[in-house]
Amino acid sequence: MKMILAIMPNNLSDEVSSFLLDSDFRVTKFASTGGIFAGGTTTLMIGVDDDKVETGLKLIRDQIPPSKPADAAHSRVTIYVLNIKDFARVY
Amino acid sequence: MKMILAIMPNNLSDEVSSFLLDSDFRVTKFASTGGIFAGGTTTLMIGVDDDKVETGLKLIRDQIPPSKPADAAHSRVTIYVLNIKDFARVY
Amino acid sequence: MKMILAIMPNNLSDEVSSFLLDSDFRVTKFASTGGIFAGGTTTLMIGVDDDKVETGLKLIRDQIPPSKPADAAHSRVTIYVLNIKDFARVY
Repeated sequence: MKMILAIMPNNLSDEVSSFLLDSDFRVTKFASTGGIFAGGTTTLMIGVDDDKVETGLKLIRDQIPPSKPADAAHSRVTIYVLNIKDFARVY
Repeated sequence: MKMILAIMPNNLSDEVSSFLLDSDFRVTKFASTGGIFAGGTTTLMIGVDDDKVETGLKLIRDQIPPSKPADAAHSRVTIYVLNIKDFARVY
Repeated sequence: MKMILAIMPNNLSDEVSSFLLDSDFRVTKFASTGGIFAGGTTTLMIGVDDDKVETGLKLIRDQIPPSKPADAAHSRVTIYVLNIKDFARVY
């Protein structure tokens, strides 16, 4: 299992997380700050089975609109993928 | 060493984190949102020695009250365990 | 690649993160609570290449002022280093 951490400007995060939730991904959102874009960032934490990582990353990328020329020099979304050793749910 | 990340409804987090702190676990709390439960979630981040992971998970589980029938279909607490490669404290 | 997570009192975090940003580290900040120090904590998440981990840790340590005698028994900054499996930027 893997953990995807995706850091993005706030204005992109609602659409990305709605899309992931609609596709049955489990998303936790954190308010964060950092980077060069005004208005704060949101960090999405997504726990996924190994065989869904590529799908999850593609879903995220597909929701990021093409960058405006002014932004082209800077990444808008940073994605880290980490290994999850164990996973549990309490019902 | 391991990192336990436990995502739970806000109303459960105070009791769980107090209990962990009383048992000498090192807990950092983050406000988060996500999942299907209203009222926001809290994510606890707990750094633990390998031989304390099971104790930590048990302490968390023991503080989660039995689910109401209405909630039985949905997990209330999601727990991820990650490897920590290095650890340091600055005094 | 590695992820450095550094949890520190709020009053230290601005200086530490400015210093890291000036040194071209990529820093995301999260508001957090926990530990014994009043006033809240900030958790810095820093994605770094393997050969920059030591430099990053040194930069953090160098920005932490000497502890006052009253604080000497308690760590003020906790640092975890995790492995990052994959990394991507969306421009």
